[in-house]
Amino acid sequence: MTAFNLDPRLRDDSIPVANLGLCSLRLIDDRRFPWLLLIPRRPGCVELLDLQAKDQAQLWREILAVSGVLKDRLQPDKLNVAALGNQVAQLHVHLIARYREDAAWPGPVWGMGQSLPWGEDARPLIEQLRKDLEAR
Amino acid sequence: MTAFNLDPRLRDDSIPVANLGLCSLRLIDDRRFPWLLLIPRRPGCVELLDLQAKDQAQLWREILAVSGVLKDRLQPDKLNVAALGNQVAQLHVHLIARYREDAAWPGPVWGMGQSLPWGEDARPLIEQLRKDLEAR
Repeated sequence: MTAFNLDPRLRDDSIPVANLGLCSLRLIDDRRFPWLLLIPRRPGCVELLDLQAKDQAQLWREILAVSGVLKDRLQPDKLNVAALGNQVAQLHVHLIARYREDAAWPGPVWGMGQSLPWGEDARPLIEQLRKDLEAR
Repeated sequence: MTAFNLDPRLRDDSIPVANLGLCSLRLIDDRRFPWLLLIPRRPGCVELLDLQAKDQAQLWREILAVSGVLKDRLQPDKLNVAALGNQVAQLHVHLIARYREDAAWPGPVWGMGQSLPWGEDARPLIEQLRKDLEAR
């Protein structure tokens, strides 16, 4: 059995938030967008189809749970949920709280200029998201 | 009970492929990308969270089924699966077969220049996708 190793690019671009049943939840280090990643801790997975059926179902539950937390806590104008993976093959799902006044609206966030690191402001957001997830 | 009406912009940008249990499956009329939409036939839904639980589960099954057809039939380098909805609020999920040589790789397809209509070439692709879906 191969061990799961987080892709170095995903690791370097994001900050750990929580370990859910299947996925590592991480915050992209770009304060322009409240932007989370769900990364199933399963080695060798690139497509949703590469997960076993029970993991596919669990990923969907985690997508919906994190979506609910983002919606309730941050009240975005729209949630964006996407599994793209053109740049980093390791399976990961983006969950992004979007606002009509954000830096990319109404376009997608990917490839939109330079990221602005969260710095110390990541901490209260991450703590709040953890609490909200635990309370669900 | 409100009736479901397909958003006019989604309708105008795409060609019907099939009616699945929950979703209308449509082909975006842009031959640069094999690009499908799954649109749940439920009025008033914007976010995944707006669907009832059984419809959420059905949407996931349909996402995985259509992903499987795209992967097996078109052998893309990557599938892109996304619910964005910043431009058209009506809930819809994009499923796009991506190739390293396509017009947007490795970027996302949204907002990438002018679409190239499929014309008559849509027909054999749609027929094949229908057959593949029926055979699942």
